[in-house]
Amino acid sequence: MTTRRAVCPGSFDPVTNGHLDIIGRAARLYDEVVVAVLINKTKSSLFTVDERVDLLVECTAAYPNVTVDSFHGLIVDFCRDHGIQVIAKGLRAVSDFDYELKMAQMNNGLADVETLFMPTSPLYSFLSSSLVKEVATFGGDVSGLVPDPVLQRLREKLGG
Amino acid sequence: MTTRRAVCPGSFDPVTNGHLDIIGRAARLYDEVVVAVLINKTKSSLFTVDERVDLLVECTAAYPNVTVDSFHGLIVDFCRDHGIQVIAKGLRAVSDFDYELKMAQMNNGLADVETLFMPTSPLYSFLSSSLVKEVATFGGDVSGLVPDPVLQRLREKLGG
Amino acid sequence: MTTRRAVCPGSFDPVTNGHLDIIGRAARLYDEVVVAVLINKTKSSLFTVDERVDLLVECTAAYPNVTVDSFHGLIVDFCRDHGIQVIAKGLRAVSDFDYELKMAQMNNGLADVETLFMPTSPLYSFLSSSLVKEVATFGGDVSGLVPDPVLQRLREKLGG
Amino acid sequence: MTTRRAVCPGSFDPVTNGHLDIIGRAARLYDEVVVAVLINKTKSSLFTVDERVDLLVECTAAYPNVTVDSFHGLIVDFCRDHGIQVIAKGLRAVSDFDYELKMAQMNNGLADVETLFMPTSPLYSFLSSSLVKEVATFGGDVSGLVPDPVLQRLREKLGG
Amino acid sequence: MTTRRAVCPGSFDPVTNGHLDIIGRAARLYDEVVVAVLINKTKSSLFTVDERVDLLVECTAAYPNVTVDSFHGLIVDFCRDHGIQVIAKGLRAVSDFDYELKMAQMNNGLADVETLFMPTSPLYSFLSSSLVKEVATFGGDVSGLVPDPVLQRLREKLGG
Amino acid sequence: MTTRRAVCPGSFDPVTNGHLDIIGRAARLYDEVVVAVLINKTKSSLFTVDERVDLLVECTAAYPNVTVDSFHGLIVDFCRDHGIQVIAKGLRAVSDFDYELKMAQMNNGLADVETLFMPTSPLYSFLSSSLVKEVATFGGDVSGLVPDPVLQRLREKLGG
Repeated sequence: MTTRRAVCPGSFDPVTNGHLDIIGRAARLYDEVVVAVLINKTKSSLFTVDERVDLLVECTAAYPNVTVDSFHGLIVDFCRDHGIQVIAKGLRAVSDFDYELKMAQMNNGLADVETLFMPTSPLYSFLSSSLVKEVATFGGDVSGLVPDPVLQRLREKLGG
Repeated sequence: MTTRRAVCPGSFDPVTNGHLDIIGRAARLYDEVVVAVLINKTKSSLFTVDERVDLLVECTAAYPNVTVDSFHGLIVDFCRDHGIQVIAKGLRAVSDFDYELKMAQMNNGLADVETLFMPTSPLYSFLSSSLVKEVATFGGDVSGLVPDPVLQRLREKLGG
Repeated sequence: MTTRRAVCPGSFDPVTNGHLDIIGRAARLYDEVVVAVLINKTKSSLFTVDERVDLLVECTAAYPNVTVDSFHGLIVDFCRDHGIQVIAKGLRAVSDFDYELKMAQMNNGLADVETLFMPTSPLYSFLSSSLVKEVATFGGDVSGLVPDPVLQRLREKLGG
Repeated sequence: MTTRRAVCPGSFDPVTNGHLDIIGRAARLYDEVVVAVLINKTKSSLFTVDERVDLLVECTAAYPNVTVDSFHGLIVDFCRDHGIQVIAKGLRAVSDFDYELKMAQMNNGLADVETLFMPTSPLYSFLSSSLVKEVATFGGDVSGLVPDPVLQRLREKLGG
Repeated sequence: MTTRRAVCPGSFDPVTNGHLDIIGRAARLYDEVVVAVLINKTKSSLFTVDERVDLLVECTAAYPNVTVDSFHGLIVDFCRDHGIQVIAKGLRAVSDFDYELKMAQMNNGLADVETLFMPTSPLYSFLSSSLVKEVATFGGDVSGLVPDPVLQRLREKLGG
Repeated sequence: MTTRRAVCPGSFDPVTNGHLDIIGRAARLYDEVVVAVLINKTKSSLFTVDERVDLLVECTAAYPNVTVDSFHGLIVDFCRDHGIQVIAKGLRAVSDFDYELKMAQMNNGLADVETLFMPTSPLYSFLSSSLVKEVATFGGDVSGLVPDPVLQRLREKLGG
């Protein structure tokens, strides 16, 4: 049996409880899981790539087979470089599905990499990093939506 | 019986006949309806917030239980401050649905506020403020899509 | 202020915790709520109409402004006969949306009745009476998905 | 490393090239794959369960780690009995997604089983057993849509 | 220039104003339009195939380039037999789209026939033969939804 | 018989094999087809309008009844000016459908122009100009997704 490696790619700006749900479940399904922060210079972000990586490291410390990395460029190149066979993604809603299906079919054409979708837990089906930032910006309570370290950093960033 | 208050939030840049259809129906379902213009400083708009409020006041004059206001920040905070129990929204199509469902579940988690969706009249199912502006910008005829006061202001703004 | 009456129509074969979530929230939004079991002689059911009504009565006992009834024919006729202005429905997913939107637009054309949609709680977004029956038929555990009186009756019916 | 076992459940009445695409890709992702034919006595079928199993055995002969079985009742019980952690399914289109997401969330609540979705190859996105049967019934050419053994058996059954 | 022939296939049980909208627009886009009633012996219907054809002939009398026919089997065979290059269909909503897209891709693979979709007029986006029958069965008013000859025949059939 | 003219509007930044599939099929359905590049000054593009027109001219040379043009403003005005009755568009997925349906209904209201949708070939259902640009930017292989002249120009632009 070969080692099964999966990547959970994303912006994670910041990581939410929905992301952690997917990462935790991936950690049980694959031998090794790499959480990979996409470096996208054309999109503004609240947290720097380093801050996002640090928060992910802190929040996934309980999973011995999870590591955190960052990448820029094509996820299929990252997979090839790291011997990864599977892209693991959560699916929340139909709006996700359409876009993600296109990306998965494109990536499958570009390289020998499969995208496997896990349905998001119903509890987190409405949750996204943008919603969290929007709510936190105006002083709304996002505890329960993000892990504690993120909660604290959001308060520091936004002065909430 | 307590007073039933609802809010119709939106950008209203500018108000269309589709919006007025929803507002008019809300006016019959609730004791008091507040139309609330979202102040969003990060998004450029054709009409200023004041102009949008003025147009709404003019176009809803026929409904004695409708008032117009503006807000910035979270709609749930606006609801709490004004003793509003219900966010009333129109639903046109599936693309609306996905986003609005997420917002509604988020808002319901943040505060004790319900979002109630009214199906848009089939006549206005394709109508949006952006489409109106796009068509009007290039001299297209938008009478029948927006109320008369908006028609006139669009012509002034765009020199149509 | 007039009395605000709403109806929650459905098959309720049997009532689930998802239905009760919608009914409970409707009970807070309207002065009076009628839960109305649709009598559909062309569709086979697990519970008789009387059994479904009895279970609903038992499970909604905590809401003083909720009553249970049954009807056959058009929901808009039921509304007219009972002075009801609003049909209150839950929306779970896009597949619901398309069908329900058509029905709502049809009903709005037939009579002066509005359909208002409440987003289902994320916890119950996957839940339906058919799924409950399918799972219970094969001895699966549906506690947490249906109220206790239904759990007991399902066991009696299905010998689980 | 534990053995990774997945099940591909379905009616397979009959197996199509779309199913074989999913099964073949699952065979590379998991150590062992069980293709499981659902025995559904309330639904009429063209092929008997035994015929469907035989066709699947013949068409998956190239994959040493794929076995074929049948089951009735809940897929989560089948998983528990066979030490299976993953339900592997193909996703073709939005209409699949809504139903499959509900089933996956239900199954995840019933047992410790994950459903992982693979996007169907674009080539087979329109393909289903019912479409194949409908076309073959009226003498349409379904070569290229089903494997050769199925093509032959369809002709025998339908006298095409 | 060759003659452009299109077919509008369907059950038409009975024809609605939505169907007539599509047929009328097709009559302007193509040189000849055949409205083709699908003979489906496994599905029960309110009107016989002959009655449906007669109603269609009566309701399309105003269009000199429209003829009415019936067929059973595959629509692509009907197209080949009648020198038809185009299947003309209306699209109402997302639920239509998914199924129709599959059928169109299947038919394009089976024969050299294109399926062209026309968006239904917003006025009829909620309309279907089944809804009309359901409403008429219980004495609801369907004038405005179906043409006059259908209105009369529905009353005779259903004693409304 | 009048001449049937259709327009294929789009950004074509750059033209993909998916676009060419739609254009080629339109060339068989209509007497004359105009491919019209939308000039959108508010949106940044990789290729200039002239470059896009040139590439389209080169890639559609095999179709004698296809011409290439550019336009700015409303597509319905372009249609009126050129005696065009039909806007021909490809439909890939549900996310396309919702937006395109709105545009089509708007355009049909603005002018006597029909929008006819062709289902995209399954082979190209995931393909879009943005995906091509994203992949090519990072050195991914897009041969098979775009015609050869585009492949070459992409390499020149992006130094790939």
